[in-house]
Amino acid sequence: MNMDVVDLIRIKRDGGKLSGEQIDWVIDAYTGGVVADYQMSALAMAILIRGMERDEIARWTAAMIASGERMDFSQLRWPTADKHSTGGVGDKITLPLAPLVAVFDVAVPQLSGRGLGHTGGTLDKLEAIPGWRADLTNEEMFEQLNTIGAVICAAGSGLAPADKKLYALRDTTGTVEAIPLIASSIMSKKIAEGTGALVLDVKVGSGAFMKDLDNASRLAETMVELGKDAGVNTVALLTNMDTPLGLTAGNALEVRESVEVLAGGGPADVVELTVALAREMLTAAGKPDVDPAPALQDGRAMDVWRRMIAAQDGDPDAALPVAEHQHVVNAERDGFISRMDAFGVGVAAWRLGAGRARKEDAVQAVAGVEMHAKPGDRVVAGQPLFTLHTATPERFDRAMESLEGVVDYSDQAPQVAPVILGRVG
Amino acid sequence: MNMDVVDLIRIKRDGGKLSGEQIDWVIDAYTGGVVADYQMSALAMAILIRGMERDEIARWTAAMIASGERMDFSQLRWPTADKHSTGGVGDKITLPLAPLVAVFDVAVPQLSGRGLGHTGGTLDKLEAIPGWRADLTNEEMFEQLNTIGAVICAAGSGLAPADKKLYALRDTTGTVEAIPLIASSIMSKKIAEGTGALVLDVKVGSGAFMKDLDNASRLAETMVELGKDAGVNTVALLTNMDTPLGLTAGNALEVRESVEVLAGGGPADVVELTVALAREMLTAAGKPDVDPAPALQDGRAMDVWRRMIAAQDGDPDAALPVAEHQHVVNAERDGFISRMDAFGVGVAAWRLGAGRARKEDAVQAVAGVEMHAKPGDRVVAGQPLFTLHTATPERFDRAMESLEGVVDYSDQAPQVAPVILGRVG
Repeated sequence: MNMDVVDLIRIKRDGGKLSGEQIDWVIDAYTGGVVADYQMSALAMAILIRGMERDEIARWTAAMIASGERMDFSQLRWPTADKHSTGGVGDKITLPLAPLVAVFDVAVPQLSGRGLGHTGGTLDKLEAIPGWRADLTNEEMFEQLNTIGAVICAAGSGLAPADKKLYALRDTTGTVEAIPLIASSIMSKKIAEGTGALVLDVKVGSGAFMKDLDNASRLAETMVELGKDAGVNTVALLTNMDTPLGLTAGNALEVRESVEVLAGGGPADVVELTVALAREMLTAAGKPDVDPAPALQDGRAMDVWRRMIAAQDGDPDAALPVAEHQHVVNAERDGFISRMDAFGVGVAAWRLGAGRARKEDAVQAVAGVEMHAKPGDRVVAGQPLFTLHTATPERFDRAMESLEGVVDYSDQAPQVAPVILGRVG
Repeated sequence: MNMDVVDLIRIKRDGGKLSGEQIDWVIDAYTGGVVADYQMSALAMAILIRGMERDEIARWTAAMIASGERMDFSQLRWPTADKHSTGGVGDKITLPLAPLVAVFDVAVPQLSGRGLGHTGGTLDKLEAIPGWRADLTNEEMFEQLNTIGAVICAAGSGLAPADKKLYALRDTTGTVEAIPLIASSIMSKKIAEGTGALVLDVKVGSGAFMKDLDNASRLAETMVELGKDAGVNTVALLTNMDTPLGLTAGNALEVRESVEVLAGGGPADVVELTVALAREMLTAAGKPDVDPAPALQDGRAMDVWRRMIAAQDGDPDAALPVAEHQHVVNAERDGFISRMDAFGVGVAAWRLGAGRARKEDAVQAVAGVEMHAKPGDRVVAGQPLFTLHTATPERFDRAMESLEGVVDYSDQAPQVAPVILGRVG
């Protein structure tokens, strides 16, 4: 087909609609290098400002899927369900969730990424476990799903390569925050991955990508529509990310907390969200009547976790690494904690070494922030509020800066926001 | 200075205003390769859609000027005045205008470009004259201005290099049509060129870049403000480009017509606009009481023309090249011509070989369209309307296609639009 990318850019720039053929062509031409980065970034900016209609987004997503391989889990002995979170501070839910769902004979093919910025990546967390490896062949993944029922591993480079190229470009051109592009980026990977059911955890609040419920709802609705159109049974929960999830943000710290949840304990918000997402995944996979909560108490989820970690060469019994340097931050006054800002805590963990500034950076397994109280808790002045962990103590100063003002106090017991704010599906 | 281009892009993307420091930094970083093309194209798209405030445009222009050399004509024996046209079909006005103004002891340093697309370039036209050369050193230019008073030559690569890089990028990313970027592109070159006075000919209509009077007026006002802010005495005329200027579009054809004007003849619209622009240039250069019109009749402008051409090794007495292949298109019916579309005529001339599709293409000196009637003229069916000229007759078919529908007829004498539509200054 003979098209001129400048004509396409002009159409979107002036608020028009791209045809299916134009979308197929531009994704293919961009993947093949016929359309240059500087042309795609201009188009991405026009899409961000002008938007896209529903069928444009669906076609854009389909074109990105068609740019690479598509996995097929239809030969597995179990139905499949996956979860995707848009990213939050202390969001370790995948770790207890995948084994919990697998207990009930629903396979969880969780293809994950590494973190960039103040929200951590699932693979970074699991790599705190001695021996554990993220990279599996497709055959290893399939075998693990068919025997253990849960796998958390790195997404292969063959899935939606157009998205990989476009995401890297958006990251450096101020065009990340476009709902059509966010939705098609997430959904192209998840649809190409071949899951039968999908539950989206769309985070809302200061520590999330989406700061307000309106935009988060629009994103959730767009993604749910895309999933359903592609034959994937998709639902979304809108969940609170004004406050960190649980009491830890950092790689080894979050693995420890996840193991506590799998042992029947752990912070209430992590347990609540894990169980709610498990219920959605089971329902979406055709098992609406199962109550997953008991499997956290009776050791069944822990059993799957141990087998899942061991299958990827991790030692579930090995001690997790601990930071050589720790620093305690105390409460400034007596009272109730009325707010604990997720973004500030996330940046502190990132500055301590839990996250990376550039893709090629390494992360510290030990670094992060441990919280000793949460909104609604009563504290007294001088009581420990945070423990900061790092292998490189020169990082404490800048981490402390980002904690300034993250905690508000009140004299009365505050209203604490719920974990789950809404559902789309 | 340590800035992140993504932050700047986000500000403009969200409708905000860039600071002076941010603008200086981004132009400098783009010229130096620190900011990549794919980042600048995203910023250009955001500027196109969101706009810029007056002081942002002024700073952007100043930063582009600062990216290169700045010429200085203050040591010339005469004051200087220049003219810039935003480009039209048959717009050969520079050719008679520069010598006409120089008659009155105002020097005209006309640094010009080559054409791209359906509007021709002044250098392409003059290169139809045997021996004439466009490239002069700064010393040759200065000497010619000080002796003859008029020079039309190629702009050196040292003027506003940031603009050259940005213009090439905009051309391939659908970001040409941004008034702040058009205005700063034109004015950065003209201000860097060092002229004391500047008259802008902003074309409006089907054959022009600006299709409607509102946008053309906004562009003219923006450029006049930029010029005045930079100490250049600047005015703009808004002129009609629904119809081609004069009776020729094409390189040698337009030189021939220009020489007719310098000999005291030529089409009325070309004479009218040449004299009007000359009057504006003389006024802007401090000579408001001069009537330039007689100098076209008494040979004084022709004298300067002959010296100006000869100084650049052109032979003003040499015969101009003539196309080997000509094809006549006749009037379809009796009546008055009520419309002759400039864009269609421009594309026909371009397809005959007068213009280029890519920068590296050569143009034919002989190619173009000769018109035998203009709006308001009465014709009879079968009378010649156009003569098409080319060295490559296989081009006739596509040229004829672009002439389909360019002429409308009426039974009553139509109202003919004026050449000059407005003035800003």
